[in-house]
Amino acid sequence: MKVRVETTPQPTASYDVVIRAGVLAELADRVRSVAAAERYAVIAPGDVAALYGAGVIRDLRAVGLAAELLTFEPGEAQKTRAVWAELTDRLAALEFGRDSCIIACGGGVTGDLAGFVAATYMRGVPVVQVPTTLLAMIDASVGGKTGVDTSAGKNLVGAFHQPRLVLADPLLLKTLPDAELRAGLAEAVKHGVMLDRAYFDWIGERADELLARDAAALENLVAGSVAFKAAVVAADPFETGRRAVLNFGHTIGHALERQSGYALTHGIAVAMGMVVEVAAGQLLGVTEPGTLEQLVSVLRRCDLPDRPHVTSLDQVVAATRLDKKARNAAPRCALPREIGAAASDSAGRWTHDTPENVLAAALEATSAGARNV
Amino acid sequence: MKVRVETTPQPTASYDVVIRAGVLAELADRVRSVAAAERYAVIAPGDVAALYGAGVIRDLRAVGLAAELLTFEPGEAQKTRAVWAELTDRLAALEFGRDSCIIACGGGVTGDLAGFVAATYMRGVPVVQVPTTLLAMIDASVGGKTGVDTSAGKNLVGAFHQPRLVLADPLLLKTLPDAELRAGLAEAVKHGVMLDRAYFDWIGERADELLARDAAALENLVAGSVAFKAAVVAADPFETGRRAVLNFGHTIGHALERQSGYALTHGIAVAMGMVVEVAAGQLLGVTEPGTLEQLVSVLRRCDLPDRPHVTSLDQVVAATRLDKKARNAAPRCALPREIGAAASDSAGRWTHDTPENVLAAALEATSAGARNV
Repeated sequence: MKVRVETTPQPTASYDVVIRAGVLAELADRVRSVAAAERYAVIAPGDVAALYGAGVIRDLRAVGLAAELLTFEPGEAQKTRAVWAELTDRLAALEFGRDSCIIACGGGVTGDLAGFVAATYMRGVPVVQVPTTLLAMIDASVGGKTGVDTSAGKNLVGAFHQPRLVLADPLLLKTLPDAELRAGLAEAVKHGVMLDRAYFDWIGERADELLARDAAALENLVAGSVAFKAAVVAADPFETGRRAVLNFGHTIGHALERQSGYALTHGIAVAMGMVVEVAAGQLLGVTEPGTLEQLVSVLRRCDLPDRPHVTSLDQVVAATRLDKKARNAAPRCALPREIGAAASDSAGRWTHDTPENVLAAALEATSAGARNV
Repeated sequence: MKVRVETTPQPTASYDVVIRAGVLAELADRVRSVAAAERYAVIAPGDVAALYGAGVIRDLRAVGLAAELLTFEPGEAQKTRAVWAELTDRLAALEFGRDSCIIACGGGVTGDLAGFVAATYMRGVPVVQVPTTLLAMIDASVGGKTGVDTSAGKNLVGAFHQPRLVLADPLLLKTLPDAELRAGLAEAVKHGVMLDRAYFDWIGERADELLARDAAALENLVAGSVAFKAAVVAADPFETGRRAVLNFGHTIGHALERQSGYALTHGIAVAMGMVVEVAAGQLLGVTEPGTLEQLVSVLRRCDLPDRPHVTSLDQVVAATRLDKKARNAAPRCALPREIGAAASDSAGRWTHDTPENVLAAALEATSAGARNV
């Protein structure tokens, strides 16, 4: 399967996301045609490099491409300006020039970090993304976001840098830890809730196959989510309008992540965030009654949390104030009107004022496991 | 005067360069209309901030805009990832959000450094450039290049980030050190040599007025160079073809700069580089005989060096090998065919193989002050 990502307003930067079991074997031929370069730098965390690094380098060299493997320590803690600087210094020490290409091979951290290296090395060199986690395949493949974290916030510095090509090979997910598989499912559920009822239902029906890593089911899941996200991003390249629907679950999700000291993974936190935000949406009258029950049912089938695990309601509510999207005091959440459709307000905006007392009530109701709000 | 910079392939990023004595006083009104933001951060080196910082902040606040002044130590040595990181940390500490705008107020270092801050803070915020040196007005106003230096090279990391607006006020040049004024003139001479004979002649005729900082003459100079550069950049946004003509003087200029330990300013080094490269062009038969004499005559009228100051020919030649543009062993130079016209080779390329022995002969002939090569 293949999804064409149209990158308005710069259509020349449009690219393909190719999704197919076994497609990693085509990497060398494909980069040669869409990202011809003098030299290739494959950037991967140590664990991914141990699994796939040697094979990728061998394949590239086998077709005559000059390729080097650059590794870094795995983990979200490596997504820093220091590691970014070190990788660019290593490229310079290896005398990579402007006619180089970066191949980012790993999960979301790698895509963001190696993508930011590509965005900034000699003012930008092409990048090919080879996501190795489900979350990276469905979320990071589209949008061109790159960046690193600072102590002041996640992705505080970064750039938009569209890849030349994304190769998503569901066979790579065989080695993915369970928690990371579920994190990707949470993001797919988000797309279903906000964009397509049939897709939402399909995830519920095929949850067992997806959790068993059936390649055909995962291929359909990735292709569906990538296509939804590509359509939303193409219609709103500057994140000024409808693209905000993709933030569903993230206002509370980010707050829960931060409040846990990042012990919660992003996807798990987003699942919890969706539950709380839908509860808040129902309290506000924005979201149809009964939506929370349907969401919880599919989350359970996907082995995802059906309630927030919070220790301090006050801290979570306070953390939402630091959210980038909260321009003033009241947090704004992207909310569904019902399963499969995002809600806009009377002014046509895709986020909704969510007073802290409503969030607190939603948190309290859902953290206790109550379904009726 | 106003030059519209068309930024293909992303026409929505097109912007104006406004060139007029006294235009700085219009900054607040103009940024309000072309770069509306919640908050403005004026980034300037300490020396520029001392001259203009308080006035700019006062003007912005007078029309109701929220503005803060962020300063850094002056000097090329500050154009680093460390200072970039510090500036972004200060923006974060001051809680600047995505709806902020950077106003870069200073010379080339400031434009590059503050531009890179703008390019990367929260994945990019708008930037308005207020160049305060002649070189920055005529060279950095067009092209959207931002970046910082590393030990491995100048501008080794950076990004393309088009400004929303450039305000070039020749009155600011009253306080510019002589050496920096001449550095800007060198860049303007480069445009004349490669692009327009009448402009070249005009610089020679008006050199005295330009050196005396006559505002009307400087306005014409800046407007001319900006218009030439904008036309070249618009026709070749990705620097794959004709834009290379702007590198005239830079292959040798960069090598001389590096070999001097950056004791030579960029503009002075480029003047010397033009002399050597034209001599090489004549030796190669690419450049018409007599071109060197005309170049030297105008450089002298502009109080610019008419020969390279070199201590080691071998080191200069070796340094050209490290040039980004030298893809293989032989350096490639952008050369004029005659004054006012760049030379392309039979394959339509705008740079020319310049063997090291030819460069060495050109260096030797010109450093001795010989005019006939």
